[in-house]
Amino acid sequence: MSILVVGSVAFDTIETPHGRAEKVLGGAATHFALAASYFTDVRVIAVVGKDFGPEQEAVFTNREIDIRGIEHADGLSFHWTGEYSGNLNEAKTLGTDLNVFATFEPKIPEEYLESEYLFLANIDPKLQARVRSQMPNVKMVCGDTMNYWIADHGEALAEVLKELDVLLINDGEAKMLSGETNMVKAADAVMAKGPKALVIKHGEYGATSFFGPRMFGGTETKPFRAPALPLAEVVDPTGAGDSFAGGFYGYLASQRQLTPAVFRRALFYGGVMGSFAVERFGTERLQHVRQAEIDDRFGLFREISHLEHTEG
Amino acid sequence: MSILVVGSVAFDTIETPHGRAEKVLGGAATHFALAASYFTDVRVIAVVGKDFGPEQEAVFTNREIDIRGIEHADGLSFHWTGEYSGNLNEAKTLGTDLNVFATFEPKIPEEYLESEYLFLANIDPKLQARVRSQMPNVKMVCGDTMNYWIADHGEALAEVLKELDVLLINDGEAKMLSGETNMVKAADAVMAKGPKALVIKHGEYGATSFFGPRMFGGTETKPFRAPALPLAEVVDPTGAGDSFAGGFYGYLASQRQLTPAVFRRALFYGGVMGSFAVERFGTERLQHVRQAEIDDRFGLFREISHLEHTEG
Repeated sequence: MSILVVGSVAFDTIETPHGRAEKVLGGAATHFALAASYFTDVRVIAVVGKDFGPEQEAVFTNREIDIRGIEHADGLSFHWTGEYSGNLNEAKTLGTDLNVFATFEPKIPEEYLESEYLFLANIDPKLQARVRSQMPNVKMVCGDTMNYWIADHGEALAEVLKELDVLLINDGEAKMLSGETNMVKAADAVMAKGPKALVIKHGEYGATSFFGPRMFGGTETKPFRAPALPLAEVVDPTGAGDSFAGGFYGYLASQRQLTPAVFRRALFYGGVMGSFAVERFGTERLQHVRQAEIDDRFGLFREISHLEHTEG
Repeated sequence: MSILVVGSVAFDTIETPHGRAEKVLGGAATHFALAASYFTDVRVIAVVGKDFGPEQEAVFTNREIDIRGIEHADGLSFHWTGEYSGNLNEAKTLGTDLNVFATFEPKIPEEYLESEYLFLANIDPKLQARVRSQMPNVKMVCGDTMNYWIADHGEALAEVLKELDVLLINDGEAKMLSGETNMVKAADAVMAKGPKALVIKHGEYGATSFFGPRMFGGTETKPFRAPALPLAEVVDPTGAGDSFAGGFYGYLASQRQLTPAVFRRALFYGGVMGSFAVERFGTERLQHVRQAEIDDRFGLFREISHLEHTEG
């Protein structure tokens, strides 16, 4: 079934210990859409500027991503500049030029209105809420946010949280949002704000999902932990979290029924797509992944985390 | 088969957000021995002072731990004072009174010489090396260390590492020991110093094992990740790592053959014993665990990390 994603389509200038990439295609919605496109149909709502041309469009259309909802505005596209050092776990933002994103008012094309799955990527919660309210019949809503919105736009974010089925955030954000330092207590406190389930991402350590009483009829009372793949080389971590979200939600949307087993596999597919994303700069790797590579890596995730498997 | 452990038997004064424990029984060898005692025979080499009496002895003997190798010296036992705040991930050491430990010269009782498994708990690498050299016929050697020895006793530690089958350390120690910031590269660099396999502990995120070419005949080229149990309440994290080591090594020693599957299950048992240890202050919880509780918790670890299981 179709996923509608609203978020940033942007250019990134990135420096990591492996080199530098100048104004490469990026943005949360871009990474999410590419990762999800390996599992299901994806439609994008975003705004871009004059610097977004046929070359960038092709990145989406080559993966059959529907970009009729990408609005073209006067000016330049959102441009993020950042660098990573040391173990590449944290980005240092050197510049955020919102450009056309500063006045973005998301409009949903008629053809998108019947999308079953909605993903609210990390943008201003006011915009997330606006899109959500225009999609009253959506089957499932999943969202992301970040420390900036938690700290300074708490009220708007609170409204969005009320409407979420699943929230994906990282450890620091979960603790910040809840005021709790313990992960389990933080998860409970965040779910009390609205989300029926929560996926907390731990970077190189994987992710943990928590289920509230309104998810799966309250039958899933235990968390579930999915590993990340230990990687000797991370070329560019930009978009890893969005790619995780794309793999996770793309797989969920591709399944006929949402069961606990499907949710668990979705977390593994999130890790799989995140592990591909960081192998190259920008969107380079996620533009070309073969289905067999996804299957193999899913098998690898199982192998490194499951007690029983064929032994060498 | 029997495990011989050399390490500290001490008293701890601990403050956590859950309260304060004054001079309770602690020490790496104590936590290790208690955790391992649920799986196999354990013998302890350590030194204690006049303050170690029948009450403390009973903690060991009630679990049928052989303490003929615990030497009684004049003076007081090793005493550590520390506190935890926030998310309890890191201890702040307030005092380290080595006392009788300052002049400790480990002696191995005749009856211990045929122990098949040796565990070198976190003590001065010179003492670790001395014990190791007196046990030439041991089947397997596993060891632990900490930042203090890595920073200031690198040469002595290098000698110990050469003789290890398995080293257990945490993320920070692996990076410090290797000079690498990437976990996989750090693991390779540490194994190049001697250990055939490495277990890196990630605290609340679990642990990852890495295997070098001399482990399992080089057939295991992939890491393995074991989860930790997300806990809403950690009363006292002191000894969690030693309890992990005890569960891990105790299970290994209890099995007829060391296979990759046994190693994987051992990592899960490490997590299981670590998760019990933190439920109460000091050794309180590990003094009384029922076999059924261990089995149940092992099942829980599987359930929170495996894709397939019975669904509610």
